[in-house]
Amino acid sequence: MEKYKPTREEVGRRNLLVQRVIYELKAEIRKRELDADPILVGSAARGTSLKNSDVDVFVVFSRKYDRNVLERMGLELGYEIIPDGVAKYAEHPYVSGIIDSVKLDIVPCYKIERGTKIISSVDRTPLHTEFLNSVMTEEERNQAIILKLFLKRLGIYGSELRREGFSGYVTELCIYYFKTFEKFLENVRSSRGQLVIGPKSMDFKTAVILMDPVDEHRNAASSVSVKALSILRMGASEFLSNPSVESIDPEVSISVERHPKDRGTYLLLVEFQKPDMVDDIIFPQIELLKRNLMSFAKEKDFFVLNIHSHVSGENVQILLELESGKLSEVKIHQGPPTDNGNAAHFYEKYKNDPRVARGPYIIKDRIYVELYREETRFREIFLNNLNKINFGHNLNNIKSRLKISESIKRITSSDVYLDFIHTIEPPPLSP
Amino acid sequence: MEKYKPTREEVGRRNLLVQRVIYELKAEIRKRELDADPILVGSAARGTSLKNSDVDVFVVFSRKYDRNVLERMGLELGYEIIPDGVAKYAEHPYVSGIIDSVKLDIVPCYKIERGTKIISSVDRTPLHTEFLNSVMTEEERNQAIILKLFLKRLGIYGSELRREGFSGYVTELCIYYFKTFEKFLENVRSSRGQLVIGPKSMDFKTAVILMDPVDEHRNAASSVSVKALSILRMGASEFLSNPSVESIDPEVSISVERHPKDRGTYLLLVEFQKPDMVDDIIFPQIELLKRNLMSFAKEKDFFVLNIHSHVSGENVQILLELESGKLSEVKIHQGPPTDNGNAAHFYEKYKNDPRVARGPYIIKDRIYVELYREETRFREIFLNNLNKINFGHNLNNIKSRLKISESIKRITSSDVYLDFIHTIEPPPLSP
Repeated sequence: MEKYKPTREEVGRRNLLVQRVIYELKAEIRKRELDADPILVGSAARGTSLKNSDVDVFVVFSRKYDRNVLERMGLELGYEIIPDGVAKYAEHPYVSGIIDSVKLDIVPCYKIERGTKIISSVDRTPLHTEFLNSVMTEEERNQAIILKLFLKRLGIYGSELRREGFSGYVTELCIYYFKTFEKFLENVRSSRGQLVIGPKSMDFKTAVILMDPVDEHRNAASSVSVKALSILRMGASEFLSNPSVESIDPEVSISVERHPKDRGTYLLLVEFQKPDMVDDIIFPQIELLKRNLMSFAKEKDFFVLNIHSHVSGENVQILLELESGKLSEVKIHQGPPTDNGNAAHFYEKYKNDPRVARGPYIIKDRIYVELYREETRFREIFLNNLNKINFGHNLNNIKSRLKISESIKRITSSDVYLDFIHTIEPPPLSP
Repeated sequence: MEKYKPTREEVGRRNLLVQRVIYELKAEIRKRELDADPILVGSAARGTSLKNSDVDVFVVFSRKYDRNVLERMGLELGYEIIPDGVAKYAEHPYVSGIIDSVKLDIVPCYKIERGTKIISSVDRTPLHTEFLNSVMTEEERNQAIILKLFLKRLGIYGSELRREGFSGYVTELCIYYFKTFEKFLENVRSSRGQLVIGPKSMDFKTAVILMDPVDEHRNAASSVSVKALSILRMGASEFLSNPSVESIDPEVSISVERHPKDRGTYLLLVEFQKPDMVDDIIFPQIELLKRNLMSFAKEKDFFVLNIHSHVSGENVQILLELESGKLSEVKIHQGPPTDNGNAAHFYEKYKNDPRVARGPYIIKDRIYVELYREETRFREIFLNNLNKINFGHNLNNIKSRLKISESIKRITSSDVYLDFIHTIEPPPLSP
């Protein structure tokens, strides 16, 4: 706790900053005769923040304002407080910047009451803070910090689409329902299938169901993927059988030695420049591209072993691994059942076809033929069909700028290969 | 008909021979004071035989005799008629030989009435002859000859386990129910799924159901395989859309040109001396061996394209074709679901294992690891596991005398390869 909880001095400094920001926002609101209220939200407001964490201040507007007014006034107020801030874009734009070495976001939202309809997805955030502050004890807030650290260590803290993990709010609700970090882990370990945290008011097909106490029709944990839940289960199991402080510390990294040998497979490296888009857009697109590449290879009769991606700075690397990069020259082509009228057409069609390598012949109730393939090498088949593979809305235009490599030397020194070979999931909590 | 039906002169000669054999058998039976009657059965008795066909004479014994008496007396009487005959073994032994250039079998059986229980499976044969003789017109007998020729042409005449086709009796019943060759083919062509010929008195899971008119609980066509039925369907369809006399003639062979190129696959030739056993034992054993070889290769992660066998004289050849004869060096090993307690053991087991090539890692709700394989070549894996592969009761002892070849030159000149490449099923009835 000492290592990660902000010091008394840091909290003091931050509180002064927040007071000043809210005071100034109120003045600016008055000056403009707006019906709006600034409010501190997020972990800083709930006493569950880590050292050097961000501060989120929301400006809660009356519902009487149109969306474009809210957006314009939100940016205007934000720039008043952070003159050198930058506009960022979530559901609507907000101003983000650094003041007194603290990262500060000023976000506009609409005022809502519990149970009433939201206009924008951030409108619930003030209610979340209000709810947690009204129910969480001091000890529970500390337990929430421990759970956050543990989730960070496992790489599943944060609801961004890159991680598909547990948001800060969800993490705190886990503690609200189970009181302690350990009880929560025990519950996770003994759970099977879909994980339901707290009461289950509705059915969702998500990995985790966690009813949002401020809106019982909403699943607060909808962004948690099956994989993130799996990692949590494995981590919970490992921690509980050998609990230690190090297993919670995100800065402790336990490595396992791997001495990669020749894999005897076919590897293809596909690289392209990362488009200038936010992570929440680019990451789902890369996942789509990976799925489509795999389906393409399967459809063309290749046996896919792995597909792996790595995004670093400006560059996206995708590594496709096939059992073999070359197919046999012959392909078995299944015809219709022999009690179907089309079987006779199939037989007539192929009986004298020069593309036929063998047959037609019959196995049980079906007719088959073997044909010579026109192309057997994956790289050529991939390049010949590039225009038919869907790279996704935002990536289709990079097709002409792909770098493709089959060179084993080039591949084994690439970031994506090193990540591919050395990643262990979940990351080891003990040696 | 002229080409295949025996001439008046041949029929005359055969009738004389049969009369003499029956006369002599009666004398021998009287001499021994046996309660038994000789009778001509089979196609010769029914006027549906082809040129130079065999003659079957049954000796029908009273049920009062024990099985061993019947067997002993059957052989004794047989040798009286065919002194240089040989004993053959079906359900019980009988004498077979050549008299006046006609192949003659003398087979003992028990006398039964229609509907009474048989003692040995040949006991029904005299009833079959009696039934068909009482119902078939002269024209229907000719139609049956045409159907026999057509089935011979397609390679599906005969109920031996080598063919699993249509016996002479079944062929004649097909005409009994449909009157003409053409009407039978039309019915076959329009049928779907299981083929039911005549009334369906019982359910059988066989390809064809044909109630035996002399025993309505028996399926006379139980030996017809799904493949033989498929070939008949394809042949019926081809004949009806382009009928010709040549399509019925078993001696007309229409060939299709094939110019085999490199198949780009892995071929393994397995050869052994044919054990000294009758075809009805050896052929099912070879089929079992083929199935077991395929399962073995699949189980060891090879992708099986084809398995083909060829039996010629003294030699059995089996050709196994795999997409590749070499696996990748790594193997993906799927672990338990992560909500199962065993997932943690799996993780602990493999985390530091030096055989691990990659992982453990998580995909959705499962944990996986990749391991280096100890052996990747099929030939070596096959030879190392030879003692674990079931070759079947009568072939297990030839394991130590297998000849194994990977040489493409040796393989492409082998009989099994030539048969494999050039066989077309069904054999073409038109160019």
